[in-house]
Amino acid sequence: MTISSFVPPHRTLMGPGPSDIYPQVLQALSRPTIGHLDPLFIGMMDELKELLKYAFQTQNDFTIAVSAPGSAGMETCFVNLVEPGDKVIVCRNGVFGERMRENVVRCGGEAIVVEDEWGAPVSVAKVEQAIAEHPDAKIVAFVHAETSTGAVSDAQALGLLAKQNNMLTIVDAVTSLGGVPLLVDEWQLDAVYSGSQKCLSCVPGLSPVTLSPAAIEVIKSRKTTVQSWFLDQSLVLGYWSGEGKRSYHHTAPVNSLYALHESLVLLKNEGLENAWQRHKDMHLLLKEGLEQLGLSFVVEEASRLPQLNAVYLPEGVDDAAVRAQLLEQYNLEIGAGLGALAGKAWRIGLMGYGARRENIALCLKALETVLK
Amino acid sequence: MTISSFVPPHRTLMGPGPSDIYPQVLQALSRPTIGHLDPLFIGMMDELKELLKYAFQTQNDFTIAVSAPGSAGMETCFVNLVEPGDKVIVCRNGVFGERMRENVVRCGGEAIVVEDEWGAPVSVAKVEQAIAEHPDAKIVAFVHAETSTGAVSDAQALGLLAKQNNMLTIVDAVTSLGGVPLLVDEWQLDAVYSGSQKCLSCVPGLSPVTLSPAAIEVIKSRKTTVQSWFLDQSLVLGYWSGEGKRSYHHTAPVNSLYALHESLVLLKNEGLENAWQRHKDMHLLLKEGLEQLGLSFVVEEASRLPQLNAVYLPEGVDDAAVRAQLLEQYNLEIGAGLGALAGKAWRIGLMGYGARRENIALCLKALETVLK
Repeated sequence: MTISSFVPPHRTLMGPGPSDIYPQVLQALSRPTIGHLDPLFIGMMDELKELLKYAFQTQNDFTIAVSAPGSAGMETCFVNLVEPGDKVIVCRNGVFGERMRENVVRCGGEAIVVEDEWGAPVSVAKVEQAIAEHPDAKIVAFVHAETSTGAVSDAQALGLLAKQNNMLTIVDAVTSLGGVPLLVDEWQLDAVYSGSQKCLSCVPGLSPVTLSPAAIEVIKSRKTTVQSWFLDQSLVLGYWSGEGKRSYHHTAPVNSLYALHESLVLLKNEGLENAWQRHKDMHLLLKEGLEQLGLSFVVEEASRLPQLNAVYLPEGVDDAAVRAQLLEQYNLEIGAGLGALAGKAWRIGLMGYGARRENIALCLKALETVLK
Repeated sequence: MTISSFVPPHRTLMGPGPSDIYPQVLQALSRPTIGHLDPLFIGMMDELKELLKYAFQTQNDFTIAVSAPGSAGMETCFVNLVEPGDKVIVCRNGVFGERMRENVVRCGGEAIVVEDEWGAPVSVAKVEQAIAEHPDAKIVAFVHAETSTGAVSDAQALGLLAKQNNMLTIVDAVTSLGGVPLLVDEWQLDAVYSGSQKCLSCVPGLSPVTLSPAAIEVIKSRKTTVQSWFLDQSLVLGYWSGEGKRSYHHTAPVNSLYALHESLVLLKNEGLENAWQRHKDMHLLLKEGLEQLGLSFVVEEASRLPQLNAVYLPEGVDDAAVRAQLLEQYNLEIGAGLGALAGKAWRIGLMGYGARRENIALCLKALETVLK
């Protein structure tokens, strides 16, 4: 078997992520690798922290990028904050809420599941009730933007509710960061993780994470050792800390961090509010076109994420065949349904650099042609 | 604070890794991102598995790249194979043996430490004795090539010893893969992990891992759930498996995998034996020059890794000042000592693409000038 260089085609990525990458980010990615303890690299990491603080709208000193995908960012929050026996209220309204529950269990915690329909937002009233029934719970965990359904939940209300009851929050912001308002400090969220490959339009493989001072306190007063060495943030802190000499923890993914830095510079230059508005505007354009094609949304208008549009398949349409045709004939990727929506819905992403008129035009015309 | 694009200088990387990256690998890295479930990407992953099998010299079906750095590859092997109460014989002759011990403890296992001096190889006789004293141990864990000292251990003898006593092996091959002989099948090694940023000369951030059928059997017959969701290989298998539909686990670091694929194509084109010989030849050249400068090696000749040359600092020399001068004046990075060797030794890497005459010439002349 002779294997030669892999040369991928140029796809337009309108699935649930990875999203279309900014050309500038791909350029930054291939800049010369320097050492992970090089003073210039450490300076770059300091800038990266500042840029991440802006994106998360936080002053949290602990704001870094975990050297692995979003799933590892999720696990970072759980293994550091949950100790055996801890009660965690987990809101489940899609795939990622269920993954949170699995994380709690693997940490030896007890998961109190608050269930909502796939496609519905997390019910604040149900969470309030769960808190009333379990006043000894330590954490409320929820997904801000459910990538499996395209529903956004009220992170502000849930954050406030948790604070009023002296509980921490763990928040999945994988798909929300950069696409819809997320105000970590104002909403008093404690542990928030995201991914590089959604609305930041960076390559996949990194997970921005921010921890509030309250979360750091809880980590510092743990009774047990964190089960993961790689994700133990008390060790990682020594590497990302701004003061004095950096201690070696693991070899940072140098080039991927260049790329994340660049994507965050682009976000800062655009301005968060402008980015949110652009996602909204492009969503409305796409929505109009999809409805003209007779497609209907999975999520009700009030909870609809602009950057992830889940629509039901028209009757009698072969899911896989349509997606294959779009890919092969138009180099266009849209996402399949996940979990309960597999085979029933498509997920059309308008994330970061992907939220552009030309992408929408391509998607609508290609869908129109293929569905005829 | 205005932050703009980060443009790193071109460094010559002769530390313990990241090593000099092949220009072709940086090119591959910035090719257009495609979806992680795109059929073309899945085809690339299949090729990547074949290429990794070649590099590891194994037929193990489970041969993949973990989507995170070498430390996560290490943790992958431990969390999947070690259950609470399991006894693991851990050989410690440097930083990474100690990290293995920490992994065992965090898995709830009992670590039986076999201690050797920093700079010495693992003593096969001591391991034999430890096995005799602990015939109920499940695993023997050791570092093939200690990155902190530059010592290579006899992985073949240790592998045989473990097999004769019905124990599994976990082997750290982070620095050995591609640089010195490593014959996973012939030596009957069970769980072997490496890193992308050493002798493969790929960007940091990925960890090749191979598991033998015996290791897979042990994973399949676990009594407890793997503590890590992200590193649970029974879940990851569904994504990397060659048969039928891939199930979503996490978003693969698409572009980094392009880069790894390219670096492995380059290795295959050169030929493993040729790569080993090149590392050896270049090491002898460097050694001659270093000895002419009056520098002496930490590791005895018989156990010296060609790709990682740890030499003692000359008396009266300011460690940090010399390294800073090399970096600032020559754009040359060499490595500081780690752990017990901090401030006492330098680590000069000749890894992968870095094992070239021009790098050696630069390093020797620059050192000669700076040390005058």
